[in-house]
Amino acid sequence: MVSGRFYLSCLLLGSLGSMCILFTIYWMQYWRGGFAWNGSIYMFNWHPVLMVAGMVVFYGGASLVYRLPQSWVGPKLPWKLLHAALHLMAFVLTVVGLVAVFTFHNHGRTANLYSLHSWLGITTVFLFACQWFLGFAVFLLPWASMWLRSLLKPIHVFFGAAILSLSIASVISGINEKLFFSLKNTTRPYHSLPSEAVFANSTGMLVVAFGLLVLYILLASSWKRPEPGILTDRQPLLHDGE
Amino acid sequence: MVSGRFYLSCLLLGSLGSMCILFTIYWMQYWRGGFAWNGSIYMFNWHPVLMVAGMVVFYGGASLVYRLPQSWVGPKLPWKLLHAALHLMAFVLTVVGLVAVFTFHNHGRTANLYSLHSWLGITTVFLFACQWFLGFAVFLLPWASMWLRSLLKPIHVFFGAAILSLSIASVISGINEKLFFSLKNTTRPYHSLPSEAVFANSTGMLVVAFGLLVLYILLASSWKRPEPGILTDRQPLLHDGE
Repeated sequence: MVSGRFYLSCLLLGSLGSMCILFTIYWMQYWRGGFAWNGSIYMFNWHPVLMVAGMVVFYGGASLVYRLPQSWVGPKLPWKLLHAALHLMAFVLTVVGLVAVFTFHNHGRTANLYSLHSWLGITTVFLFACQWFLGFAVFLLPWASMWLRSLLKPIHVFFGAAILSLSIASVISGINEKLFFSLKNTTRPYHSLPSEAVFANSTGMLVVAFGLLVLYILLASSWKRPEPGILTDRQPLLHDGE
Repeated sequence: MVSGRFYLSCLLLGSLGSMCILFTIYWMQYWRGGFAWNGSIYMFNWHPVLMVAGMVVFYGGASLVYRLPQSWVGPKLPWKLLHAALHLMAFVLTVVGLVAVFTFHNHGRTANLYSLHSWLGITTVFLFACQWFLGFAVFLLPWASMWLRSLLKPIHVFFGAAILSLSIASVISGINEKLFFSLKNTTRPYHSLPSEAVFANSTGMLVVAFGLLVLYILLASSWKRPEPGILTDRQPLLHDGE
């Protein structure tokens, strides 16, 4: 009975993912003064929220499209379009999240891209962009041969999982960095574990739990579209709509 | 010609792994004053070196034992013992690395386990310990049935890869944290990217590259022991040595 267990996992994933986003919003709203779009620290506050939403939660959900039992039968094209569209939404959220932090830094004449968190983060976003374009070019546009698709598929799936892992590492180092910044020279420094630190640390661990669950469903579980005869896999994008 | 490409990958992995360890040693030696075992900051310096060596490099190497073509034929037991022994070495290095940081903190009356880096790190070490004991109990000791082994194997492989990913996230957030600490209130703060920051950031990215290569060989590549008839998989540990 795949569907019972599968929908339970979807429910768990959906709630875990929503909690990751809501907790991050709450952290920024309750302890860090909320949001604005004016180059101030309140503009920075969009950065953690949009990166968690984009690079982890939307990205994670988008990568599991082919685990839906409905996608195992009938034409693949609609599911490919959904897969690509959801990832594109994740990418847009990510880019807006980057604009928020770069604008804040430039506004305050602070250097960009000096911390290891930012080196890993920008590398991960770059890999995500390459992954999206390669996926679109090879698996959605009709020109690629079956040989090329079957050659690239394991690499596409691997980088799909690897990018999510790097996103989680970026989020962890980002939350860690933010807390060191924010709780420096305060009456309740980070090492005294004030409630903000406990809450933000827990949010980070939630992101890890969400990521591991996505990776498990993606890599280890048997919920996969049974490989049909290779020939049926070739759906031209631009002409006859199945 | 699996072996040609395989040994090239081993060479790449070996040199990348050695560089990760040597770069971390160099960072601590050249910029952070070297090593000691007296509760001082020089004792802390063992922490990054031993965690990179233990939780990433030795751990990564140990998990690839079954990718050696020699392990695809003949009895599995010797390779299981090698797999377990190498991971045990990784675990010992890890524990010594934890002793170094806890002793340094206690010596300086600094709080332990308050940062997200430490929460994730200690969780990862705990998962590693569970993974080792479960692996030993189910796959090395002879009592487990074939049914139980085939049930747990995908979970064992998944957590093997997941623990390595979490180790990388811990190392990244650890290097990030250390640089914020060390380059605070200095003439060349972190955000001015002094040579130490460039070097340590690059070491972090090397660790990511090493980790991704291990994960690729582990998850995506076809270098796997062909699944023999399930029956031959049951090697009793304690009696007849094949």
